[in-house]
Amino acid sequence: MEAYLSKREELISEDRALRPDGFASKSLTPDERKADEILRTVRAAEAESVWGLDRKSNHPHGSQQMFPGMEFLTARKTIMGTKIFDILSKMPKGGLLHVHLDATVRADVLLKLALQQPAMHVRISGALALNSFKTVLPEFRALPQSQWTQIAGITDAQHVPGSWVPIQNARNNFDKAMGGPEGFDQWVIGSLMIDPSEAYHTHNTGAKIWEKFESTFGVSGGLILNMSIFAEYIREFLLSSIEDGVSYVEPRILFWDKFMVGEDGEQNVPHRVWVQTFERVMNEVRAKMHAQGRDDEFVGARIVYSTVRVCESSELEWFLEDCLALAKEFPHLIAGFDLVGHEDSLKPLIYYYEPLTKFAERQKEEGVNIPFMFHAGETCGDGSPADLNLYDAILLGTKRIGHGFSIYKHPKLMEICKEKGICIEMCPISNEILRFTGSMPMHPLPAVLNHGVHVALCSDDPSIFGNMGLSFDFFQVFVSSEVSGIATLRSFVWDSIKFSSLDDEEKKEAYGKLERRWTTFIRYIIDTYGRSM
Amino acid sequence: MEAYLSKREELISEDRALRPDGFASKSLTPDERKADEILRTVRAAEAESVWGLDRKSNHPHGSQQMFPGMEFLTARKTIMGTKIFDILSKMPKGGLLHVHLDATVRADVLLKLALQQPAMHVRISGALALNSFKTVLPEFRALPQSQWTQIAGITDAQHVPGSWVPIQNARNNFDKAMGGPEGFDQWVIGSLMIDPSEAYHTHNTGAKIWEKFESTFGVSGGLILNMSIFAEYIREFLLSSIEDGVSYVEPRILFWDKFMVGEDGEQNVPHRVWVQTFERVMNEVRAKMHAQGRDDEFVGARIVYSTVRVCESSELEWFLEDCLALAKEFPHLIAGFDLVGHEDSLKPLIYYYEPLTKFAERQKEEGVNIPFMFHAGETCGDGSPADLNLYDAILLGTKRIGHGFSIYKHPKLMEICKEKGICIEMCPISNEILRFTGSMPMHPLPAVLNHGVHVALCSDDPSIFGNMGLSFDFFQVFVSSEVSGIATLRSFVWDSIKFSSLDDEEKKEAYGKLERRWTTFIRYIIDTYGRSM
Repeated sequence: MEAYLSKREELISEDRALRPDGFASKSLTPDERKADEILRTVRAAEAESVWGLDRKSNHPHGSQQMFPGMEFLTARKTIMGTKIFDILSKMPKGGLLHVHLDATVRADVLLKLALQQPAMHVRISGALALNSFKTVLPEFRALPQSQWTQIAGITDAQHVPGSWVPIQNARNNFDKAMGGPEGFDQWVIGSLMIDPSEAYHTHNTGAKIWEKFESTFGVSGGLILNMSIFAEYIREFLLSSIEDGVSYVEPRILFWDKFMVGEDGEQNVPHRVWVQTFERVMNEVRAKMHAQGRDDEFVGARIVYSTVRVCESSELEWFLEDCLALAKEFPHLIAGFDLVGHEDSLKPLIYYYEPLTKFAERQKEEGVNIPFMFHAGETCGDGSPADLNLYDAILLGTKRIGHGFSIYKHPKLMEICKEKGICIEMCPISNEILRFTGSMPMHPLPAVLNHGVHVALCSDDPSIFGNMGLSFDFFQVFVSSEVSGIATLRSFVWDSIKFSSLDDEEKKEAYGKLERRWTTFIRYIIDTYGRSM
Repeated sequence: MEAYLSKREELISEDRALRPDGFASKSLTPDERKADEILRTVRAAEAESVWGLDRKSNHPHGSQQMFPGMEFLTARKTIMGTKIFDILSKMPKGGLLHVHLDATVRADVLLKLALQQPAMHVRISGALALNSFKTVLPEFRALPQSQWTQIAGITDAQHVPGSWVPIQNARNNFDKAMGGPEGFDQWVIGSLMIDPSEAYHTHNTGAKIWEKFESTFGVSGGLILNMSIFAEYIREFLLSSIEDGVSYVEPRILFWDKFMVGEDGEQNVPHRVWVQTFERVMNEVRAKMHAQGRDDEFVGARIVYSTVRVCESSELEWFLEDCLALAKEFPHLIAGFDLVGHEDSLKPLIYYYEPLTKFAERQKEEGVNIPFMFHAGETCGDGSPADLNLYDAILLGTKRIGHGFSIYKHPKLMEICKEKGICIEMCPISNEILRFTGSMPMHPLPAVLNHGVHVALCSDDPSIFGNMGLSFDFFQVFVSSEVSGIATLRSFVWDSIKFSSLDDEEKKEAYGKLERRWTTFIRYIIDTYGRSM
């Protein structure tokens, strides 16, 4: 039996030898070992006490069984009451490498920012009623003062759909039968988020939930791409990330619209001003953290230039040249280039082969370096165009892969990722809500790790999904695997810096900051939860 | 661009080089190539016409979007109307290597067999009403004539729960308010099957749906383990398998009960008589097929001896010795040994290390060969005891792995399976209904194939899931992957013989039969669906 057990141990070690969390080496400090034991014990206890058999969730269509790693939107409140969540929310997370800027600020906060703008107007395309809350969506725009209206409300019987209403009027005079001002807030926030009834019932397929998902961007765009709000929006994103322990971010910013609405209400603010604003706010946040003696909590921020994989191949050239110009002016701010959007329905990467290949030459000519960070394989398809995007992303030399959900099916591609150091930006909660996986225990993340591929955990579109920061994604992953422990958490955190676009010197500094905070974090686990053990 | 495309083609080929369907070699006959093209065209067309956006299913809790490979229980009727299903139902399937005998005959057919038995009685543990159809389950038993009762019905107000009622009385006098005799049938059939409301709503977790799943065996056991029914039950299983194109079966038979109820109503029929009966019926079916000139449609049947992973380690020795005795007497009928039951809650394989290891020695002593065919990895757990069962199954020398759902997470284990020729008995529909995967597009089967591991598609418990035969499982797999084509189907079919327990001579004969039928099948596709192309 002893001989068998040691052979067994050896086989398990061999099977896990490739894991980025160094399962095989087990090089934990004594304190980390203690913290690891605490985490595993608490996780096992809560699997029973919080998620055990016959505990029921409030599913929109009747109560359902709960379990660790279950559907996030029905589990969110329960998650927040757990000890594991408390611990993970205290953890320094390193970098957030995959997040779309226009979905990074809580919907209610964004609405509050908008309500402060007298120029902000709202309109609807048809009559609004309680039963059309989900189909008649608000469209926002800050108008030039000459076009401001005096229209009293948006829900009056005589209201003409299509006409712009000042946002404050629309809110203050929102029909009492629809909830009054709070009803207005619910309507707007509902149009900016996915609710459990949609994800798990009415919009239960990838194709369908993407309809809802994409519609939220139509609503938020009119609020965010507005110089009166943009700076505060970025500040809120950075500060709330810091509060969750995220010290570095590389948001994808969509440069699809060529101009943002300026303070004058005209759509006339070019991309370079967006980037300048981003930099200014970042520096202000840095200064603020410094003033508070919290330098370790913030490393910085960079932009992944993005456009949508819906444009013609010829149109893409404009965006690539635009990206090039921004990278020349702000080489320290442009981290990479990406094409975003629903892979299962939009153009495959190979469609853009020519401009993307030319881009490499143009970078050389201009003396800049803009790595690709392509979305690829965000699909359940097997051999479908979205799945094939993985081959193209890799052949085109991508530095990281956005999502890479289907990479676990591809032995050769995982090998290449391992060899070339291509990191997968995995977004577990996003994958589940957008119906690529039924729940976290069904998610292929463990397969990817066991094959030796490095992964950065990411939140993707947290304001839409409600997974603000990174604690929720870490939670879902951590409770769904008995292999994962403190070494796994540490590996995710360090990899999020390692695979960032920071240079070696900056990484060194970031690691130093992380190391100090990590020690505090480990102490927190031991001091808070270790006594009873 | 051309150079890129050829590099791309090369990478895709390399990535798929390990696939058992020989993707890389593409050695199809001209007719197979034609059939492949037809299948792919029909599949793509039906993905729109049958499963396209805004087509809705009758989900028990409101209509939902449909999609190819969606939840089987709500898609079943739609599947049966497709051309792909028509084609697959005509396909010769080879062997069925993973199926539990006590869940192989349609519930309504089993009930019909039971109704013919005057000795068959039924009882309930509490009062039965419409709202307790799912909680008050029937218990069946054939009684010795001396104990037969005259009780008029099971739903009368004065009925005493716990008393045995003749099945015909129970049915004929079933309360009209509960549907009369048809209501009785519904009640019994509902207790033998999982319905969509259970799988997708009330019992939405693995732990919960297994409660329902296991309860069906409690009901069916009293009907099947009965010499008046057993032979007809096996005959029905074999004949219905043949009708679906399955020519060979290796059912797992549960030898948990030491005796079956005999014709005299006493529980006194030992295991060797079960096996003798199995053999007799198999020979009768063979003779019948021969008489009809259908020799090619039947190869034979063998038994995988099974007990439940709930017994004590010491108890297991009795079963192993029992299995040994049967294998000595019927070496041509005992194909292997397995431990069955819910891996996530019952004893792990390693618990049985000692008796299982001793078993190998005992086989040598007795001069028989009984390979292990262990259930292992039927779990969403990552590093959980059920997941770890995979290591033990392999270290203990298993010949095949039952389910192996979680094997895709284990690079080293997949490598070993590939090298040692360990086949995975995958049960896609079972996995989905028992909530290991949300739908077929989320199922890890493609990952396993791409890693070069051989897979036999299996139905597991078709009478409970409604996936009789193998056509449904083939359907779900085939419509969920654009990689799979005629070569994939052929590979599954041939592998189901290759990894069976038939000896080389028998396999040769089986392949010969398959080859002839395959040619007819390919012609059917071309003749029926090729005209319009």
